[in-house]
Amino acid sequence: MNTIDLINRHRSIRKFKDLPIEKEKMDRILECGMRAPNTGNMQIYSIIVTEQRDNIEALSKLHFGQGATAAAFLTICVDVNRYHHWCRLRGCDEPYDNFLWLMSGTVDATLAAQNICIAAESEGLGLCYLGTVMYNTQAIAELLELPKGVVPVVTLCMGYPAEEPALSERLPLEGVVHQEKYHNYSDDDIERIHRIREEFPFNQEMVRQNGTRNLAEIFTKIRYPKKDNVAISKALLEFVEQAGMM
Amino acid sequence: MNTIDLINRHRSIRKFKDLPIEKEKMDRILECGMRAPNTGNMQIYSIIVTEQRDNIEALSKLHFGQGATAAAFLTICVDVNRYHHWCRLRGCDEPYDNFLWLMSGTVDATLAAQNICIAAESEGLGLCYLGTVMYNTQAIAELLELPKGVVPVVTLCMGYPAEEPALSERLPLEGVVHQEKYHNYSDDDIERIHRIREEFPFNQEMVRQNGTRNLAEIFTKIRYPKKDNVAISKALLEFVEQAGMM
Repeated sequence: MNTIDLINRHRSIRKFKDLPIEKEKMDRILECGMRAPNTGNMQIYSIIVTEQRDNIEALSKLHFGQGATAAAFLTICVDVNRYHHWCRLRGCDEPYDNFLWLMSGTVDATLAAQNICIAAESEGLGLCYLGTVMYNTQAIAELLELPKGVVPVVTLCMGYPAEEPALSERLPLEGVVHQEKYHNYSDDDIERIHRIREEFPFNQEMVRQNGTRNLAEIFTKIRYPKKDNVAISKALLEFVEQAGMM
Repeated sequence: MNTIDLINRHRSIRKFKDLPIEKEKMDRILECGMRAPNTGNMQIYSIIVTEQRDNIEALSKLHFGQGATAAAFLTICVDVNRYHHWCRLRGCDEPYDNFLWLMSGTVDATLAAQNICIAAESEGLGLCYLGTVMYNTQAIAELLELPKGVVPVVTLCMGYPAEEPALSERLPLEGVVHQEKYHNYSDDDIERIHRIREEFPFNQEMVRQNGTRNLAEIFTKIRYPKKDNVAISKALLEFVEQAGMM
């Protein structure tokens, strides 16, 4: 399959067959992660590959039960610990423990993650990103024994797919892309852009089942309500500060 | 070419032919960006495509002259402005202006960026990520007329390649990947892992030309020294606060 078709058929896979990922295949996929572009070719990230059953179970719990049947969890972290260690051995400053490098490192870790995702899918594997890595950062860091200077920002659970979900909907291109400069949206724009999403059968069914007035309420009241966002932001910020990255 | 080979032959391209990117091709590439996984399928990002010569020149200046010959700049932003507008029209809370969604949004924007990168390369285009998007955030936001709630986090410059640079080196897999849990590095580990990097001819030449003691000094003294990192972190944090994302 050509690369563009492969990218266009991405689905999140949440149920996996009881099959391990071959070591050679896993290494090939991880090497693809390493080839991702990154700031100054400094590779300010680490990848924790968790494959033992008991460790997966413990990690899955911290992700609210997601990925329980996965063959592997990949936790991809911003990592200035390794870089600073090298600087120290070379008698240099250790200047990367700050907000700029948290942000650049998050971008670099994510570029590696998406290379891994696409390479894995090209090898017949399925996977799902777990945004919950930002929810339980402290507990995840303890479980994975992350030292100071290491912040988990992306988690992938991965394995051979045991489901074939339908393709999910997306906003039309004009809803996301701006030519030359940002063109702010009129009320009509917002209505038009979101029509496809609001009319998508799966979303209509969600609204009906939850007894909400509309789709926006699913997100703002049930899935990601304000009080949770504020509490998680606070905990995440505290973790980042303790990790020495603010 | 198969996808894994394509990923493994990535090079940053910084010089471009004087050729535009065909509209149909650009749309196909952008659609690949839209297919990237993202938190709750909320697509909390916007993509600004800059192709007019005068706009590219202005933008390139804010990136310290990088990408001056590119056919297009793509500035990919965390965007809660559009999502909140929709929530408002549906009579809902606007709960995504906080640190959690800055971080999740940065991951989502970057996943879209890397889909775009790989799709573009599969179509014969070349590109380079410009980490400088974090350096001049305020000025870039003004030039692109970004409203509150929109934070640029990734910039790609793109076009038909006018150079064929050598493949850059990477750390060995064992230097970045940890099995099951994070295994902190001994001094010997750090030495061994970095050998390939320190012996890479291009890097040795850089050390020689700059009259530095070693490669770490290139990064910590010349390219990304502490005082710059601290100043940029401060400005970036101020921008993010003004954008309402802390």
